[in-house]
Amino acid sequence: MNRRKFLKGSALLSGLFAINPVNVLATEPVVKPKSYKKAKNIIFMVSDGMSSGTLALANLYSQNILGKSGNWINLYKENKVSRALMDTASASSIVTDSAAASSSFGGGFRVKNGVLNIGANGERYVPIWQKFKKAGKKTGCVTTVTITHATPAGFCINSASRNAEPEIAEMYAEIGFDVMMGGGDEFFNPAKREDKKDVYGLYKQKGYQILKNRSDLQNIDKSKPVLGVFNTGALPYAIDRANIAALQSTPTLAEMAKTAIDKMKDHKEGFVLQIEGGKVDWSAHANDVAALIHDQIAFEEAVKVAVDFAEKDKNTLVIITTDHGNANPGTIYGADATRNFNTIAHYKFTNEYILNAIHPDFNLQQTKDWIYETNAISLADDEAKSLLSFYTSLDKEGGLYNYKKLPFKLYSEIQKKHNSVGWISMDHSGDYVELAMYGPGSELLKPFVKNTDLHYIMLEATELSAHTGKL
Amino acid sequence: MNRRKFLKGSALLSGLFAINPVNVLATEPVVKPKSYKKAKNIIFMVSDGMSSGTLALANLYSQNILGKSGNWINLYKENKVSRALMDTASASSIVTDSAAASSSFGGGFRVKNGVLNIGANGERYVPIWQKFKKAGKKTGCVTTVTITHATPAGFCINSASRNAEPEIAEMYAEIGFDVMMGGGDEFFNPAKREDKKDVYGLYKQKGYQILKNRSDLQNIDKSKPVLGVFNTGALPYAIDRANIAALQSTPTLAEMAKTAIDKMKDHKEGFVLQIEGGKVDWSAHANDVAALIHDQIAFEEAVKVAVDFAEKDKNTLVIITTDHGNANPGTIYGADATRNFNTIAHYKFTNEYILNAIHPDFNLQQTKDWIYETNAISLADDEAKSLLSFYTSLDKEGGLYNYKKLPFKLYSEIQKKHNSVGWISMDHSGDYVELAMYGPGSELLKPFVKNTDLHYIMLEATELSAHTGKL
Repeated sequence: MNRRKFLKGSALLSGLFAINPVNVLATEPVVKPKSYKKAKNIIFMVSDGMSSGTLALANLYSQNILGKSGNWINLYKENKVSRALMDTASASSIVTDSAAASSSFGGGFRVKNGVLNIGANGERYVPIWQKFKKAGKKTGCVTTVTITHATPAGFCINSASRNAEPEIAEMYAEIGFDVMMGGGDEFFNPAKREDKKDVYGLYKQKGYQILKNRSDLQNIDKSKPVLGVFNTGALPYAIDRANIAALQSTPTLAEMAKTAIDKMKDHKEGFVLQIEGGKVDWSAHANDVAALIHDQIAFEEAVKVAVDFAEKDKNTLVIITTDHGNANPGTIYGADATRNFNTIAHYKFTNEYILNAIHPDFNLQQTKDWIYETNAISLADDEAKSLLSFYTSLDKEGGLYNYKKLPFKLYSEIQKKHNSVGWISMDHSGDYVELAMYGPGSELLKPFVKNTDLHYIMLEATELSAHTGKL
Repeated sequence: MNRRKFLKGSALLSGLFAINPVNVLATEPVVKPKSYKKAKNIIFMVSDGMSSGTLALANLYSQNILGKSGNWINLYKENKVSRALMDTASASSIVTDSAAASSSFGGGFRVKNGVLNIGANGERYVPIWQKFKKAGKKTGCVTTVTITHATPAGFCINSASRNAEPEIAEMYAEIGFDVMMGGGDEFFNPAKREDKKDVYGLYKQKGYQILKNRSDLQNIDKSKPVLGVFNTGALPYAIDRANIAALQSTPTLAEMAKTAIDKMKDHKEGFVLQIEGGKVDWSAHANDVAALIHDQIAFEEAVKVAVDFAEKDKNTLVIITTDHGNANPGTIYGADATRNFNTIAHYKFTNEYILNAIHPDFNLQQTKDWIYETNAISLADDEAKSLLSFYTSLDKEGGLYNYKKLPFKLYSEIQKKHNSVGWISMDHSGDYVELAMYGPGSELLKPFVKNTDLHYIMLEATELSAHTGKL
C-alpha cells in the first residue's frame, strides 16, 4: 500500500468515527444510526377518528374501484416512512374525545375529555403552535370542519371547554396564527354570533386577509396572515362535494394544504402546519361508509401534497396519524363480500344528503326509487317501509353531528346487508391507531407510543426545548 | 502513526468494506444494511382471527387488571422487532377464511376460501413445512384447536377441503412431521372415527410416541417423533381452563410451544414450528370478550416462550401475526368506558360455559344469580327474561363453532351495555393485520406486505430456494 492509499484510508476512518465509533467495531450488522438532521418544518396530519379499518377500507376501495393503491399505504409500499402504533387514551378515559386527544399532541399532557390543554388542577399547558410561534416559525391549521373545532384548537389555545368555539375564534386572532382555514362562519360573522361581535373585523384589524371561497385561494397576499372561512359549520363531505356542483365553491383539504404550505414555505425560520381530515370522524359517527371512504381518500390527497413538498424540501417532518379510532368499520366474511363491497362505487351522496331528501309524504315507490338512484340499492318493501316510517314517527335518532336527526343507524343497517361493511357503534373507539412519519426527526419514532410522546418528538426534531418553549 | 496502528486501521477498513462499501462513502447517515445472517430455525406464530382491536383489548386488560403490558406490545416498547401491516385477502374474497390464509403463508399462493394449497386449476402448491422437511429441518405444529384444523394443515398438506380432518390426520403420519400437538381425538381414535380406522396405530407404526395429557409433556423421548392429542375437539378456552380444575389436564399453548422447541432445538439442520392460538378466532366468532382476551394473553405467553428461546439461540426467526381480523372488537366511548371495561376482570368463564349451564327450567332469579356469580353483572328483569326465553324458544342461534346453539349474540349484546366493548359481526373481517418479526431475516420485512410474501420471506431468511424447495 502506498502513502496515498493509506491517507485515503485514514480519512475514511476518521469520517466513520464521527458518525458512530461503536458501529465500526461491531461484528454484527450495525443498527440504523441516529440522524442528526434537524427538522425546520413540521406538517402534522390528522385523519380524525380513523380506525385501522378505515385506512384499510379506503385502500381497498382505491385498489378495487380506482385501480391504484391509496397514498397512505403507498408510503409503506415505497418504504418511505417510520411507523408506530399509538395509545390514544385521555386522562379521564380509555376512549378519548378529539379535544383531549389534540391536547395530548398539542400540550404534551393528557387532560380530561372535552377539555383543551387545561389540567385537573387548572394547569395551563402551553399549546405547541404557540411554542413554535415564539421560536419564530410560521404557524397554521387547515381543516374540513370548523377551524375552531377541537383538533386545531388543541394545538393553538387553552380552554376549559371545546364547545367555546365563539371564544376560540377570538383567541386565534389575539395570538395571531399565520394561516387558519376551514369552516365555522357562525363563529366569526356578527350576523350569526349570539353576541353580534364582528370577529372578522377583529382579524382585519390585526392585518389578516379573509378568504371566503375557493377562488380566493388563488389571490393570496403572501405578506399578510390568512383566515379562510369557507362555510357555515363544516365544509361539505368529499363525496357530496364531488357530485353537487353548488358545493364546489369550497376548497378541498388538499387545496387548503397546498395554499398553506405555499404561503409559509419560504419563511427563514420555517413553519408548522396542522392538516385535519375532520369529516372522516363525522362519517364514522354516522356509520356512512361512502362518506368515510371518500373523506379518507380526500385526506390522503392532502398527504400526497405534504409528502411531495417534504420530499423536495428535505427539511420537513411529516407526521401522519389520527387522534382515535371510531366505530372500527370492516368488511365482513361471506360469499358475496367482494361484490357487495364494490357496490359502494355506485353510492353518489352521503347518507345525510340522501336521507334528508326523504319526506313524510314520499310513498313507498318514491322511497325505493330515490335509494336506487343514489345508492343503486333495491330496497325490499319492508326495508323501504321501515325507513319511511321513521319520517312519520316521533322517535328520532340523536348522535353526534346528526344535526338533522336523520335515521343514520337504521339506514346503515340496511346498507350493511348490501355492502358487507359493519360497525361496532356510532362513537369513538379505544383501539391503538396507525402513525407514520416522513423526513428528519422520523428516526425518533419508537414502535409503540403514547399520544403525548408526539409533543416531545416535535420539540426534539426541531431542537426546541420542551420546558421553555424556546430555541 | 506507527506500523501497528496502521495495520489495525487497515483491518478495520477491510472488515467494513466486507459489510457494505457504499455506506462508508455516504455523507448522509447510512440506512440499515442488509443483515447477511441466515436463520436456522423459524417459529411462526398465528393468533388466529386477531383484529387489531383484539391486540389492543388484551393489552389494555393486561395493563389495567394485571398491572403490566402484554408480551406482544412489550416487544414494541423494547424496540425488538420489525413490524408491518398485512393484506390478508384470499383468491376468492377480500375476506379470507383460515384455510386460504394459511395456504397463502404455507404455499405461497392465494387459493379459494375453504381450500388448502390447491389452485383454481388443480395446481398443488408444495406446503412450506414439506419444503423444510426435505431440506433436513425438524418440522412441527402446536395449536389450541384440532391439530388437523386449517391453520396447521395449510403449512403441511394439500386438500381440496379444510373439512377433510380425518384424512388430514392420516396425511400427517404419512409425511412424518416431528411434533404435532393440539386437540382432535375424534380424527385419530378408532372409537370416534366414522371409518373406525385406528389412526393412532398408524402413528405408532411410524415410530411416534403418543401424548394424551399434560403430564405426558414431561416424559418425552427426544429420539422419537411426537403426536400429542389432548382433547376431543379443541382444547379448552384459557379462561375456563384457569377456573375449572378438570380442564387442567390439558396443556397450555405456551407449554406445548416450550415442549416442541425443546424437542427440536438441538437438531443440527434446525427446525420450523408453527404455534397457533386458534381459540382467539373462536372467541371472536362468539363475540365473547373475556374468552378473547384470555386466549390472546395465553397466545402471548407462547410469544414470550418463543422470543426468550430466540434471544438465547440467536439463529431463530420468530414471525408473530394473525391470518385475518375477526369481528373488529373495540372499546366504545362513554362516561363509564374505563370502569365498564375493567369489570371484565370479574368474568370467570366463557359465555359458552355460562350459557350452557342455563336450562329451560331456570326461573328468573336463578338466571340472574347465575349471571351475577359468573360475570358480576346484575341483569335487569327484561334482560333475564329475554335470555331465558331463548331456552324455551325454537329459534336457535347458529354461527361457526357455536356447537351447542347457544344465545351468543343475544348475551354479548347484554354484556356490551356493561363492558363497553362492541363487535361489527360474528365473523372474519378484511382489515389489514398486525405482523412482527424478531431475529435473523426480520430485516427482509417491508412495511406493507401480502400474506403470500411471508412464504418467500421464510425461504429467503433460511436461504432455501423457492422453486426447488431445496437448500
